[in-house]
Amino acid sequence: MIILGLDPGLGTTGWGLIQADGNRLAHIANGQIKTNAKAPLASRLLDLDSALQDLILEHRPDAAAVEEVFVNKNPQSTLKLGQARGVVLLGAARAGVPVAEYAARLVKKSVVGTGGADKAQIQAMLKVLLPGATLSGPDAADALAVAITHAHHR
Amino acid sequence: MIILGLDPGLGTTGWGLIQADGNRLAHIANGQIKTNAKAPLASRLLDLDSALQDLILEHRPDAAAVEEVFVNKNPQSTLKLGQARGVVLLGAARAGVPVAEYAARLVKKSVVGTGGADKAQIQAMLKVLLPGATLSGPDAADALAVAITHAHHR
Repeated sequence: MIILGLDPGLGTTGWGLIQADGNRLAHIANGQIKTNAKAPLASRLLDLDSALQDLILEHRPDAAAVEEVFVNKNPQSTLKLGQARGVVLLGAARAGVPVAEYAARLVKKSVVGTGGADKAQIQAMLKVLLPGATLSGPDAADALAVAITHAHHR
Repeated sequence: MIILGLDPGLGTTGWGLIQADGNRLAHIANGQIKTNAKAPLASRLLDLDSALQDLILEHRPDAAAVEEVFVNKNPQSTLKLGQARGVVLLGAARAGVPVAEYAARLVKKSVVGTGGADKAQIQAMLKVLLPGATLSGPDAADALAVAITHAHHR
């Protein structure tokens, strides 16, 4: 099955696609969708939605996975994140792709073996678990990590 | 022109449609879209999106308007609101309806004449400004108020 991991954000949304067959994992692709901070909010959300729909149409994932949100202390950041997250969850659901949510600690545990791992450890383990993958950036790495989590816990 | 006012929320999204010709305003319809709190988040967002698309298809508004958000102090509530707001802004933009945002004080000022009005005053003035309108609830009233604001400030 093909799993699409997503790390939503208004400025940058990370995505990562893996193939999971039994215990075997393989990297397909990863990337980051960026929106123009100077554009009106509705048009940024539309750009994010269009890019996600293109991705889903091209790769036809069987499932999508996102991290449950660690709520930011800054309310305006939380609102921005929420708006992007709503668009991403809707985009998967609208395309008929079921979306699973996983706690951040479970994502870390699935990739590194412990819930307290830092980002550098996760990125190092991603290179072990998904040989040949070149990470497009930290948000793409987080998206691949949640895709792997879904492969282990689906 | 037909203006669609929206007051987004994950549990309840208020909407209100008015016809604005020069300084003349007329009520078309108002209502509240509710989602099932027991359903998964992605499916609630999908229900909200579908209901909004139906509304836009039926009434073909020329413009949409939402209030700028007063950020809630509870971060989980802010996240929920953000997710619903993202879906609503996207839904209008996807349907080609331009979306304007207005500060809460300007909405109150447009309807009641002062930025410090309470909800009861706004609802009383809505009945004056839009004779014959029966308000479906407080969120629908807020949606009509932002639609009127757009009629005055477009």
